[in-house]
Amino acid sequence: MVAIVTLSKEEPHIVNTWNSYIHVTTDDKLLIPAGFMYRTENNIKENNKVWLTIGSREVQGKMYKGTGFSIKGTARFLTDGTEFETMKEKYNWIRAVLEVTIGSAVQTL
Amino acid sequence: MVAIVTLSKEEPHIVNTWNSYIHVTTDDKLLIPAGFMYRTENNIKENNKVWLTIGSREVQGKMYKGTGFSIKGTARFLTDGTEFETMKEKYNWIRAVLEVTIGSAVQTL
Repeated sequence: MVAIVTLSKEEPHIVNTWNSYIHVTTDDKLLIPAGFMYRTENNIKENNKVWLTIGSREVQGKMYKGTGFSIKGTARFLTDGTEFETMKEKYNWIRAVLEVTIGSAVQTL
Repeated sequence: MVAIVTLSKEEPHIVNTWNSYIHVTTDDKLLIPAGFMYRTENNIKENNKVWLTIGSREVQGKMYKGTGFSIKGTARFLTDGTEFETMKEKYNWIRAVLEVTIGSAVQTL
């Protein structure tokens, strides 16, 4: 599961999505389908920093079966263009694509 | 998977744990085993607010198979007492128990 955290002043807002929904571009950006995520989009207009964790119980991690990654980056919402159209073909329910530019990524588990 | 968010000034810190590790007390507090979580503990000393999401791909949600909950509350770390000892018997690797008092909980998926 994926948790995506943005900030509105002092208040974190968390939305979740599924690991399988994340696509990685050739220049290492993450593309995440957005069906709702209105508060996330509003937060990003004020502060484009984003924090993600990605975890899987089924994949072998550092210590046992189960792994996790923590990512810091910046985000923007795409509502047109090639990336949006490609994602819209896969997920007809999306209204936008959340694009994340990775600043740092660490394996936590 | 569970994501647990605390704040250090303007910076959210996210740690993850597994759904099956969460125990619920008779007075509806969440008990979560803590093996590390040092930054979470430090953040809570300054600001005891905590935000959690709990998701499962396997459980039927509102729209499809897959469900999620979002919880806001306050937290403290327990390193002794009945709750700690009970959890320590189940999870011998823990150094503390993260106790969450729920302020609000909503089903998001």
